[in-house]
Amino acid sequence: MHFTKQDIENLDKQTRVHFINSLSGFKSANLIGTVDDQGQENLAIVSSVFHLGAHPPLIGMIMRPHSVPRDTLENILQTGQYTINHINADIVEKAHQTSARYNKDVSEFKAVGLTPYYTGSCIAPFVKESKLKMAVELKSTQTIELNQTVLVIGEITDVYLENDKAYCQDGFLDLEKLNTVSISGLDRYHTTSGLIRLSYAKPNEALHPLSIAPCK
Amino acid sequence: MHFTKQDIENLDKQTRVHFINSLSGFKSANLIGTVDDQGQENLAIVSSVFHLGAHPPLIGMIMRPHSVPRDTLENILQTGQYTINHINADIVEKAHQTSARYNKDVSEFKAVGLTPYYTGSCIAPFVKESKLKMAVELKSTQTIELNQTVLVIGEITDVYLENDKAYCQDGFLDLEKLNTVSISGLDRYHTTSGLIRLSYAKPNEALHPLSIAPCK
Repeated sequence: MHFTKQDIENLDKQTRVHFINSLSGFKSANLIGTVDDQGQENLAIVSSVFHLGAHPPLIGMIMRPHSVPRDTLENILQTGQYTINHINADIVEKAHQTSARYNKDVSEFKAVGLTPYYTGSCIAPFVKESKLKMAVELKSTQTIELNQTVLVIGEITDVYLENDKAYCQDGFLDLEKLNTVSISGLDRYHTTSGLIRLSYAKPNEALHPLSIAPCK
Repeated sequence: MHFTKQDIENLDKQTRVHFINSLSGFKSANLIGTVDDQGQENLAIVSSVFHLGAHPPLIGMIMRPHSVPRDTLENILQTGQYTINHINADIVEKAHQTSARYNKDVSEFKAVGLTPYYTGSCIAPFVKESKLKMAVELKSTQTIELNQTVLVIGEITDVYLENDKAYCQDGFLDLEKLNTVSISGLDRYHTTSGLIRLSYAKPNEALHPLSIAPCK
């Protein structure tokens, strides 16, 4: 099956959105917690969070263009802080429901039935039900001129991990022990099964499996 | 378990790399096929490919800083073209092995045992063994000043899909029918199991499951 540029262009809008959203492969599934400068809470599901660097610990995400309301982005710009919370299999429906267009004065936490949780110096709310929560400090935003989406980059300042056993000897996290899910396309959720962990690759040297044994 | 900014800073370099790479959640697993202007082939595994927009169909990826050799990026800049190929469960080890630091004059295709495949007007090689292949035209590159990584953005011009049954009625692709895998951290590979596909969310309206029935 071959889709040319013209075939893609000819797809009706919704079909193209589903199709193109499926092409990048599996995506991360996170909830972004924010408040505005009046303390009004917001929670939004985002499938575009990606690793950007380990030192300093930077994480990126893509926000939609200004043509749609973007409470999350406005809140991040106002306060400079946000939380990133892994979505686990138990809260998939509630997480998905945060994508509905609620008015700005509605807290998605309350609307979907998730619990805001405050800790440490982060003024943004975490999701209590999430098993991996991060406090993030805004570092930069830049508009992608090609389509007016916005790349938001933050530095991870705190990590809260519910299950010690997910933390492996060498720093690797076993996301399956946290029931973290993955997204494909716009709207499908997946659990995962570990196939293999592989050693650092070198030319002319055979790979070997790595352990996922916990620290504790 | 709470990791503060200082705790993260205090981790030894390799532990921090594994840890921070685990935090964003599940990642896409793709092979990037390129040639230089002499036709020398290169193939590189990349876990940072992400969806950037459906109209035009844009796809992004992050490349490492100039301090390490970046044949893939140099080739893309020289030719303006590349291919993105989903990694499936059958080729995980070969795909991982492409991350070894081969000399520039070594084709990773040959070194790891994957088959370069040329079709259409794209001068970059596809991976024959991949079940979802895309031809991509470079649209822009921008350096992320915070850590000197490079955001590469391309437009998808062709999509080759091996299994018709993965193409669903509404444009969604069932990646599980293509055996596409997901990556966590630096080096773990996962297969997935579909939990649920959910309808477009609206305030005060219940979600319902969506079909993944194929078109054909």
